[in-house]
Amino acid sequence: MDHIQIISDQTLYHDSVEPLKLELGGQLPEVRIAYRTWGKLNETRSNVILICHALTGNADADLWWSGMFAEGGAFDETRDFIICSNVIGSCYGSTGPLSTNPLTGRRYGPDFPRITIRDMVNVQHRLLKALGIEKVNLVVGASLGGMQVLEWGLMYPEIATALMPMGISGRHSPWCIAQSEAQRQAIAADAEWNDGWYDPARQPRKGLAAARMMAMCSYRCFENFQMRFGRDLQDKEVFKVESYMRYQGEKLVGRFDANTYVTLTRAMDMHDLSRGRGAYEAVLASLSVPTEILSIDSDILYPKEEQEELARLIPDSRILFLDEPYGHDAFLIDIDTVSRMVSEFKAELERRAQSAA
Amino acid sequence: MDHIQIISDQTLYHDSVEPLKLELGGQLPEVRIAYRTWGKLNETRSNVILICHALTGNADADLWWSGMFAEGGAFDETRDFIICSNVIGSCYGSTGPLSTNPLTGRRYGPDFPRITIRDMVNVQHRLLKALGIEKVNLVVGASLGGMQVLEWGLMYPEIATALMPMGISGRHSPWCIAQSEAQRQAIAADAEWNDGWYDPARQPRKGLAAARMMAMCSYRCFENFQMRFGRDLQDKEVFKVESYMRYQGEKLVGRFDANTYVTLTRAMDMHDLSRGRGAYEAVLASLSVPTEILSIDSDILYPKEEQEELARLIPDSRILFLDEPYGHDAFLIDIDTVSRMVSEFKAELERRAQSAA
Repeated sequence: MDHIQIISDQTLYHDSVEPLKLELGGQLPEVRIAYRTWGKLNETRSNVILICHALTGNADADLWWSGMFAEGGAFDETRDFIICSNVIGSCYGSTGPLSTNPLTGRRYGPDFPRITIRDMVNVQHRLLKALGIEKVNLVVGASLGGMQVLEWGLMYPEIATALMPMGISGRHSPWCIAQSEAQRQAIAADAEWNDGWYDPARQPRKGLAAARMMAMCSYRCFENFQMRFGRDLQDKEVFKVESYMRYQGEKLVGRFDANTYVTLTRAMDMHDLSRGRGAYEAVLASLSVPTEILSIDSDILYPKEEQEELARLIPDSRILFLDEPYGHDAFLIDIDTVSRMVSEFKAELERRAQSAA
Repeated sequence: MDHIQIISDQTLYHDSVEPLKLELGGQLPEVRIAYRTWGKLNETRSNVILICHALTGNADADLWWSGMFAEGGAFDETRDFIICSNVIGSCYGSTGPLSTNPLTGRRYGPDFPRITIRDMVNVQHRLLKALGIEKVNLVVGASLGGMQVLEWGLMYPEIATALMPMGISGRHSPWCIAQSEAQRQAIAADAEWNDGWYDPARQPRKGLAAARMMAMCSYRCFENFQMRFGRDLQDKEVFKVESYMRYQGEKLVGRFDANTYVTLTRAMDMHDLSRGRGAYEAVLASLSVPTEILSIDSDILYPKEEQEELARLIPDSRILFLDEPYGHDAFLIDIDTVSRMVSEFKAELERRAQSAA
């Protein structure tokens, strides 16, 4: 594992010894949050944008979403104060399975408690509080990030004044859960897994790589692979697309942790905006802040019917479509369009604020 | 492994010591073909239907496609002579990785040579020859079976006088290859894999189960899981759909072999009707026999665009659609419709034969 080297040296850390009560029971005795910021907080503390990252993402949004950072673009350091924090349960600096459990003195590993999207948002909230931020102009994110965005709107609507969830649903479908579980089982099949008690230096590489390869298929789509690879051969026996898959598997193994993968996919499976809050429709109807929903036409993991449902149920909402055949990952690929959509929403929010003033 | 117990005791075997030259090089020194028949061959030997099975299928078509067997249905034992043989490379009685290599005296295992759909068809052809059959009224099959059906039409059009391929394409897409490879890597991640040199009594169960779970996702579709499982829980921590996935994984492990899974998925990846025959369009244009193509609307593995392409390129062809949201497996689920489609095609072929006579 070389996460530490991968995390940008501009990463900041917020440590809190106040225990974090977890939604599904139990608690984390102390919590570290790794985060990055860009731009300057203005005097009225009214220029904040919060980015929520996806499953294998981290606080370095300027790296994994680089095209979004530009003057006049989605994230404009000359005007915005942009924050991105690594979710708890992850392996990029925030408290997660690779962290030491202060109560036992050893690594959490598979003992890391079950967490939910709401726990992640509570930790982000703790960070904002520590930074003295009481209002966020826009919470934005895709996939696991989009789950957090929606929870922000329900948990802290007085802070999260506008939302932009992308490629996501209001509750994880059985279709997504099934794929998560198949991926977890691939990890568990690995000789090195040992019920999660592996040495991080010798993690279940092959199982994690196979899980990532499966996931990569679901992040793309038929047409995307057709256009990129066709049936071209890499060598006599291996297709280009097979070689690409293996490369993607290996690449993740070099930067991610298997227990983290299990922890975060379980949190995604638990995603359900209505849990403990009443009827699904009523819960979404109670979402009171302006919401712009980005739907990816070719997304097989979170099909557009799910975003259309969100748009139908959330009162002050609008839906936008990405129609290039990239699959779920379009939010990382079709950057020009996504960036333009975010800046237009920001402009619209500004107009609204001015006409309300 | 208890394949032998699973294979019906009505299974017949054809053994041939004539070496089988393989398309990709090398040969099998001898070949055993496990097969079943239903009904009686008529005096003119003109009532033959050949069923080709899918990836984990076998010769027992009356078990895995039971609803298709009925008087007046697709496969009518009172009128038809129906044949289904287990493909080579499989583990249900025909020569495959579990067989003993007569040249070494030990199990083939991972040394089983790379085979193609054309090799499978050549072996079926050998069987028909041994049975004295020179004409087949209809070759029918889905998925891997559909690949064989199409190859029959190109390799032996004088024998295969009509084709009914279902849920398939004329060449395996990079999308399908990617998923096959992810599944093979899950098998290879298993502690018991040992590069394929496992004891069949202790095969890589977890890896094979994970591969099957992945595959099951691709055989179904979003809507199918939504309707069947929703977000219902099996117990406090496990969703019903997760439990179903695990069950499906376990079930396959009890009846299938990991080297076989690798061998057959590789054969599927090699599926390309145009290989060594010229331009794809021209090859399909040369397919001279009546062909009815069954397309599954909700199939994410072989999307309907692929069957529409087949229908556009094959001269004497027609396309039919299954529009229930079952996914690829619809050919096993929506049996009433599929059976009706097959019998209607049989009736049409009979009308044609009569008007030609």
